[in-house]
Amino acid sequence: MTTATNWDTFSTALGDIEVIRDRNQLEKLSKDYYHFSPVLQKQLADKVADIVVRPQSEAEVLQVAQVCVERQLPVTLRGAGTGNYGQCIPLAGGVVLDLSRLNQVKWVKPGMACVEAGAKLAAIDKVTRASGWELRMYPSTYRTATIGGFIGGGSGGIGSITYGQLRDRGNLNAVRVVTLEDQPRVLTLRGDDVQKVLHAYGTNGIITELEIPLGPAYAWAEVIVVFDDFMHAARFGQALGEADGLVKKLISIQAWPIPSYFQSLKPYLPTGKHAALLMVAEPSLELFEALVKAWGAEITYRKLAAEAGKGTAIAEFTWNHTTLHARSVDPGFTYLQTLFPYDPELTLVEHMLNQFGDEALMHLEFFRVEGKVIAAALQLVRYTSEARLNEIIRYHEAKGAFIANPHTYILEDGGRKTVDLDQVNFKAEVDPYGLLNPGKMRGWLERFN
Amino acid sequence: MTTATNWDTFSTALGDIEVIRDRNQLEKLSKDYYHFSPVLQKQLADKVADIVVRPQSEAEVLQVAQVCVERQLPVTLRGAGTGNYGQCIPLAGGVVLDLSRLNQVKWVKPGMACVEAGAKLAAIDKVTRASGWELRMYPSTYRTATIGGFIGGGSGGIGSITYGQLRDRGNLNAVRVVTLEDQPRVLTLRGDDVQKVLHAYGTNGIITELEIPLGPAYAWAEVIVVFDDFMHAARFGQALGEADGLVKKLISIQAWPIPSYFQSLKPYLPTGKHAALLMVAEPSLELFEALVKAWGAEITYRKLAAEAGKGTAIAEFTWNHTTLHARSVDPGFTYLQTLFPYDPELTLVEHMLNQFGDEALMHLEFFRVEGKVIAAALQLVRYTSEARLNEIIRYHEAKGAFIANPHTYILEDGGRKTVDLDQVNFKAEVDPYGLLNPGKMRGWLERFN
Repeated sequence: MTTATNWDTFSTALGDIEVIRDRNQLEKLSKDYYHFSPVLQKQLADKVADIVVRPQSEAEVLQVAQVCVERQLPVTLRGAGTGNYGQCIPLAGGVVLDLSRLNQVKWVKPGMACVEAGAKLAAIDKVTRASGWELRMYPSTYRTATIGGFIGGGSGGIGSITYGQLRDRGNLNAVRVVTLEDQPRVLTLRGDDVQKVLHAYGTNGIITELEIPLGPAYAWAEVIVVFDDFMHAARFGQALGEADGLVKKLISIQAWPIPSYFQSLKPYLPTGKHAALLMVAEPSLELFEALVKAWGAEITYRKLAAEAGKGTAIAEFTWNHTTLHARSVDPGFTYLQTLFPYDPELTLVEHMLNQFGDEALMHLEFFRVEGKVIAAALQLVRYTSEARLNEIIRYHEAKGAFIANPHTYILEDGGRKTVDLDQVNFKAEVDPYGLLNPGKMRGWLERFN
Repeated sequence: MTTATNWDTFSTALGDIEVIRDRNQLEKLSKDYYHFSPVLQKQLADKVADIVVRPQSEAEVLQVAQVCVERQLPVTLRGAGTGNYGQCIPLAGGVVLDLSRLNQVKWVKPGMACVEAGAKLAAIDKVTRASGWELRMYPSTYRTATIGGFIGGGSGGIGSITYGQLRDRGNLNAVRVVTLEDQPRVLTLRGDDVQKVLHAYGTNGIITELEIPLGPAYAWAEVIVVFDDFMHAARFGQALGEADGLVKKLISIQAWPIPSYFQSLKPYLPTGKHAALLMVAEPSLELFEALVKAWGAEITYRKLAAEAGKGTAIAEFTWNHTTLHARSVDPGFTYLQTLFPYDPELTLVEHMLNQFGDEALMHLEFFRVEGKVIAAALQLVRYTSEARLNEIIRYHEAKGAFIANPHTYILEDGGRKTVDLDQVNFKAEVDPYGLLNPGKMRGWLERFN
């Protein structure tokens, strides 16, 4: 599609809207963190946009949409590019629409904010915290990631131990979406209708603005607790998750030697010990410490919220930042995303720990799924071959663990598994020519079969 | 013990501390709501204090303690007398120590307040809400009950769907306790040590001050949803409880004809319909309504927080206020307190519904127990005889439902079932003569056996 396009004419048609055509810049803005996966690395390395367009307002997005539809150009959306599944890689080249300049917080009310899609998560919090509220959940890329990218490709993260996942009813109130019809429009989806574009990789509408529920802004203490035995640490994580009277935001349990990859936390991570990296509300700290004592564990690190600005945020050693740090020491690591069935005894976690040992280092994140505290794992896998990786995945699935495969850029093949007809039908409505992020939605690719 | 006491001399020894000796007042201040139970009614009707003492400060409490120890007088503690188990009935006469004038909120910090034992729950909220915080949980007697009485004999209530029960680690930070030793002292119990006096009916120390964790003060909307089928309503309650993205404070599900007993809510409670009485945070209201829609139910009543002062608080038709309203129409009702085992399908609830029908009207309250959403029931039982009541209780227990028996004034025979040695040992330490609320703690009565 793209070869026939005259990019000079295209740029002219956009008027004052910023375009980027520098080759280095184009390559940079055609990437995310898909290199965490050696499988995706092979598949996506050569995909580059022809042009990057950076609108500053929804009106400009509408104008870009109009120009792209007229020329039938592929349009792939991008925030900060902190995803890991290649969601913003332009498979068919064409236009990368960088929304990072739509970054206004439009209003904040008690428990709710209206923000533009390109607003960074940490920047949103900075505004909302002034009135006592904060984002309910965020990924470990909090400082750089945009809310639009998080909603478009994320699932949950730090905060999910209280509020569940983004897809859970109540965690996204409304979105504004620009269409790629002949006459692009702005649609507002409210309530359950937001599911049509949630975690759709920007394949079925350009999210420009979001109304997001907030949680109360606690003073969060960051704590590290260390354990001699991994399963004891894991069960502590489950118990903390289930302690309804203790307010917490993060329960990350990491098997040795993962803590050895965290240079700047070294003094608090004794050799051979398994670590719990935690965020606990300060009013809960005293009784949290009673829990630690009851479990016979040791607190090695405690940073109060007043010192939050100083040093490293503990959240940046959890979720997929764990993978990032491990890969910076040993690029041979890749990872899995495993949802274990609800089981406070963590029997299957223990089985996998014993089954794969050093080949898949256990890294648990606890969060709520439908009212229950569930262990998910982002195991660090020592990569040998795609065949072996798939074997490990199949083994987990056969035993009843759910794998949200991070080694595919196909929407449905990751976490969802099945085609979401509502999302496909919405794409048919708002992107009839299939221009948005082409090649990512299986349900669209297969709909004429 | 009490016959030998000269109450004039006793009063003189107390100096300026208020005492009450008027017979009508004494009778009134020797009661609580034990008359909900025909069993307790028989047992407790004739128990009256010889004198009521009403200190205004901890220093005065210490002085009262000194005088009572010297004279070896029984001392039964009392707040507002809103309990249902006779916890503040002076079985041995003597002194009723009314703590309702120790009612200061000493300080409020983010997520924590320090209050005197006699402070009323609603009065505490009024102070803490000014800085964005509120009590995590309260009983339906919120407007009149004191925090000391709630901690001394309550278990949870409105708010427990988020924070679990009072006994859960994190819901009580510290208490100050005056002893009844030869030289009365003030002790501070912090962290897990608070368990020594929690829900001990004031049998082992006079709680004068408490440090209580707070939750964020949401704007709570009050909502009534009605259903044709009770089990559909019950499962909606479970689903709302498990909806991690929806912030709520109350999920009360009441089988018809219970709603017919609520005069002032009549316009919103259609004949024959089962009702869900709910408190939902306003930021969650839009997506809560999507849930109601998905369940095919109907909202008949919606009151926003701005109107909270107007009309009736919906909470006052839930928990044991349900029983109160039913009994005001038909005094033949008594009630049970049933904790069902964790089961999102509510199989045992359905079984009991079918088993007892109109004899035990189903009234569910949902709350969190160890991280899971549990259905508890305060069934309205049409009382015929104590034998039949016990038969119903035994049937529930045999099927695996836990009964916290509200037809006993003995601490351990209610919800705990077993003797709490920590509490008994603490009594031996701080109340060596067994003067505090005598006759209520089985573990003390039996400790020399």
